[in-house]
Amino acid sequence: MYALGTHLLIELRECNTKILSSLKEVQNILISAAKVAEATIVEVAFHEFNPFGISGMVIIAESHLSIHTWPEYKYAAVDIFTCGDTLKPDKAVAYLIEKFQSKNPSIVELKRGIISASNKKLPHKVCKEDIRNSESVSADLENESRQPAFSINQKFF
Amino acid sequence: MYALGTHLLIELRECNTKILSSLKEVQNILISAAKVAEATIVEVAFHEFNPFGISGMVIIAESHLSIHTWPEYKYAAVDIFTCGDTLKPDKAVAYLIEKFQSKNPSIVELKRGIISASNKKLPHKVCKEDIRNSESVSADLENESRQPAFSINQKFF
Repeated sequence: MYALGTHLLIELRECNTKILSSLKEVQNILISAAKVAEATIVEVAFHEFNPFGISGMVIIAESHLSIHTWPEYKYAAVDIFTCGDTLKPDKAVAYLIEKFQSKNPSIVELKRGIISASNKKLPHKVCKEDIRNSESVSADLENESRQPAFSINQKFF
Repeated sequence: MYALGTHLLIELRECNTKILSSLKEVQNILISAAKVAEATIVEVAFHEFNPFGISGMVIIAESHLSIHTWPEYKYAAVDIFTCGDTLKPDKAVAYLIEKFQSKNPSIVELKRGIISASNKKLPHKVCKEDIRNSESVSADLENESRQPAFSINQKFF
């Protein structure tokens, strides 16, 4: 079925505890994974917990990556939610497994936003041509693509 | 099976387009949803796209909430990832459906971090008592709970 988004739920077990415990390393790896996927990063937020554990998110123009680490269990839960046909989330998955040194990873892929009962392909990035072909999109949209316009948080890139 | 996290994947179809298009409203609703779930908010980041669409995330001490809106399709993909036994993500789901006026919502619940082959309950918030009962947790941890310690982004709350 055609969907607006692809959501990879990545279970990284038996990782390197030291890496999972480092705010700097976890952040660098997730940001690099977004770049490996050829995503456009627009927001980054990470948080370190006491006594251990990191949570972080990278908002990309094409949706997001998130991570939560449990160094005490050598485990991290990573999500890669992407839209459109141009990204390479599979490359990001391989990169994450390698960098966190996971000896027992697993991945589930889900479709998000299956909203056309007739399985019609709906444009993610609304452009003029798409609008002409899509009755469901307001005709008064004139911008060529869905680009970052404004953010609440300060940009890091 | 016992898991470290519970992940709700929420498909909000046939929502109110105007609400899905408003950065302020989407942000307020997601933050309020976190509060309805009785979560502890530690980071917030939202982004508005041109010509339309909002992406946002709320990192909570117990994991995260995220949202991506497609006003042109009256659709939003929301995720609520929680850890521990004390939160009320079900209340947040009902709140989100009401506030976005979704006429056709659906929810999938997944377990994240099933890491004990013997289905042993592993403590999310590592406290002294848990450590005594868990061989997998380093014995030198002395803090009573997994509390926010440091954040890369400025706190909003």
